[in-house]
Amino acid sequence: MTVFFSPGPGQLFNEVRKFITAALDQQIPSISHRSKLFEQIFAKAASGVRALLGVPATHQIFFLGSGTEAMERIVQNLVREHSFHFVNGAFSARFHEIAEDLGKKAITHNSKLGCGFDFENITVPNQAELICVTHNETSTGVATPEAQIHALARKYPEKLIAVDIVSSAPYPELDYSLIDCSFFSVQKCFGLPAGLGVLTVSPRAMARSKELQSSGVSIGSYHSFSSLEQYAKSNQTPETPPVLEIYLLGEVTELMQKSGIAKIRTMIRERAATLYQVLSQSKKLSPFITDTALRSATVITAHCAEGAASVKKALTKAGFEVGSGYGEFKDSQIRIANFPAVEQVEFERLVTVLTAL
Amino acid sequence: MTVFFSPGPGQLFNEVRKFITAALDQQIPSISHRSKLFEQIFAKAASGVRALLGVPATHQIFFLGSGTEAMERIVQNLVREHSFHFVNGAFSARFHEIAEDLGKKAITHNSKLGCGFDFENITVPNQAELICVTHNETSTGVATPEAQIHALARKYPEKLIAVDIVSSAPYPELDYSLIDCSFFSVQKCFGLPAGLGVLTVSPRAMARSKELQSSGVSIGSYHSFSSLEQYAKSNQTPETPPVLEIYLLGEVTELMQKSGIAKIRTMIRERAATLYQVLSQSKKLSPFITDTALRSATVITAHCAEGAASVKKALTKAGFEVGSGYGEFKDSQIRIANFPAVEQVEFERLVTVLTAL
Repeated sequence: MTVFFSPGPGQLFNEVRKFITAALDQQIPSISHRSKLFEQIFAKAASGVRALLGVPATHQIFFLGSGTEAMERIVQNLVREHSFHFVNGAFSARFHEIAEDLGKKAITHNSKLGCGFDFENITVPNQAELICVTHNETSTGVATPEAQIHALARKYPEKLIAVDIVSSAPYPELDYSLIDCSFFSVQKCFGLPAGLGVLTVSPRAMARSKELQSSGVSIGSYHSFSSLEQYAKSNQTPETPPVLEIYLLGEVTELMQKSGIAKIRTMIRERAATLYQVLSQSKKLSPFITDTALRSATVITAHCAEGAASVKKALTKAGFEVGSGYGEFKDSQIRIANFPAVEQVEFERLVTVLTAL
Repeated sequence: MTVFFSPGPGQLFNEVRKFITAALDQQIPSISHRSKLFEQIFAKAASGVRALLGVPATHQIFFLGSGTEAMERIVQNLVREHSFHFVNGAFSARFHEIAEDLGKKAITHNSKLGCGFDFENITVPNQAELICVTHNETSTGVATPEAQIHALARKYPEKLIAVDIVSSAPYPELDYSLIDCSFFSVQKCFGLPAGLGVLTVSPRAMARSKELQSSGVSIGSYHSFSSLEQYAKSNQTPETPPVLEIYLLGEVTELMQKSGIAKIRTMIRERAATLYQVLSQSKKLSPFITDTALRSATVITAHCAEGAASVKKALTKAGFEVGSGYGEFKDSQIRIANFPAVEQVEFERLVTVLTAL
């Protein structure tokens, strides 16, 4: 069996197989999505996410198909004309591209790949209705410190702010009361099969969406915030959702809560520190992100002095799969996902193998 | 264990558990959606659907989150201003509502619940760019004969036509060369967990979508036809898709092809005939659809003379779950899904119980 340290879909929690068996035994995939049992499954998953991340009771939790869908729905529901995007990699660029595809005037501030932003000295233009920030740029392994995101939200209290936490949630200690929308996918830190995106929406984002709708802007259809809210009230979804996935998310959040979020965050932080130390001491590998304050704890990007191919080959031989470098870095970097589903013994084995490279 | 004769999510094929185990053993949920292995999984599922339904090689097969999403994407990609909808139930009405939500002028021809359309004497207005027809209205159990859909497509060769086959595919013997878009969900006749929608797109629908895009109409973002096509070329999807679901669809289409589509259609047809006969001879139940030419083979709706509650109770006691009547018929009807995943012995047991009511 391969151990996946890949930042796309990644390692499943060991317990997932057991959870799936339990779901099949209870015939969860066959139940009606309008049944009481489904409503319980929805409620468990939503309250699990809420508790784990610390999302205020005032904020909605919606289920979508993917993190990418979340980007589309956020733009559709919150932007009349202008969005503003901090872009420093492929996924922040995708958020911008989606806004453009939807006919919005999407303004960007670009930073170099592997770098962060000098938030204090960047002025978000007046006309921007929504600020889009990527907490964890999966393509390069740059994480924006939570304090900078909070400061940005406080600096522009009249603007809405959306934060991409696709490959970091529930790790970042965000003050969700300051954040209008955040979104993640379950195949990253939640160690589940892909096919479910989770979106949080603040009361003022809900209000903005309804305001746009009233003024004649199309905010989408079945997955507009209004439609999602209408069904979420009774713990349902507008369409037939991935019921099994939502069930599994409920089980995994329960599992994670048994460990406790503090312990999970500590584990991620400590493992990340170990990995960066290994990279710093390695002859063949070095951390791509030079500014230690910007180094992601969940996606660790390494420059490979002799090219990525031989490193990946050695890791494959040892039973590990890591991610390739993204885009232009395909042949020169690897990306190591530091997601909590990986067992300690396997993590230690990876460290040994990386150290011996 | 309950046997599900419900038309929402329904009974899983017995083999699904084995397929899921095989997927977990092969670590399918952890593989990259940009890997060769994923491309093989995509190709197997797409070609399985193509072969089973008889979709021409010229037509695209795309994977979405749900049948509902398919409605949204079709309108977004094919309608500049006007769509036309044949509405005779909740799901054809939803297609219309989605078009309105997206800001289109959605024209309808309404028929009574439980009735069909006098297609020959209905004139689709000139300005309509897209005709939307529901092959199988899941809410009432009315099926539009394939020949009528073909005649409609031939009558308006300059218009695009989209056919909802959510709860009937692969049963209807449609000439897909005449149909620009068709779509279904895997939790109906494909006996799989929900979370995946399948959409077929003709070359001229692809061209129309690009025409709209070039003229400045927003056709959506990551799930625009162009974006889906660009990735489908290499058997990939724009976003991280429900990889496990796509794998399972490949396995189930293979399973269904082993039986052969002709045999599956015969089985569905014969079981439907048996069920309608039971209903016709029953004192407590009667077929809701009076016109035998319009009776759905996959969703069979029965009026309950003494109310639905006692019937549902008796069926539950016998280990069966059927669907409730939809909307205003909640208390007076039941809906019996006739999906191929149900074993013959269970079907016969249902017939016995219904007969004895």
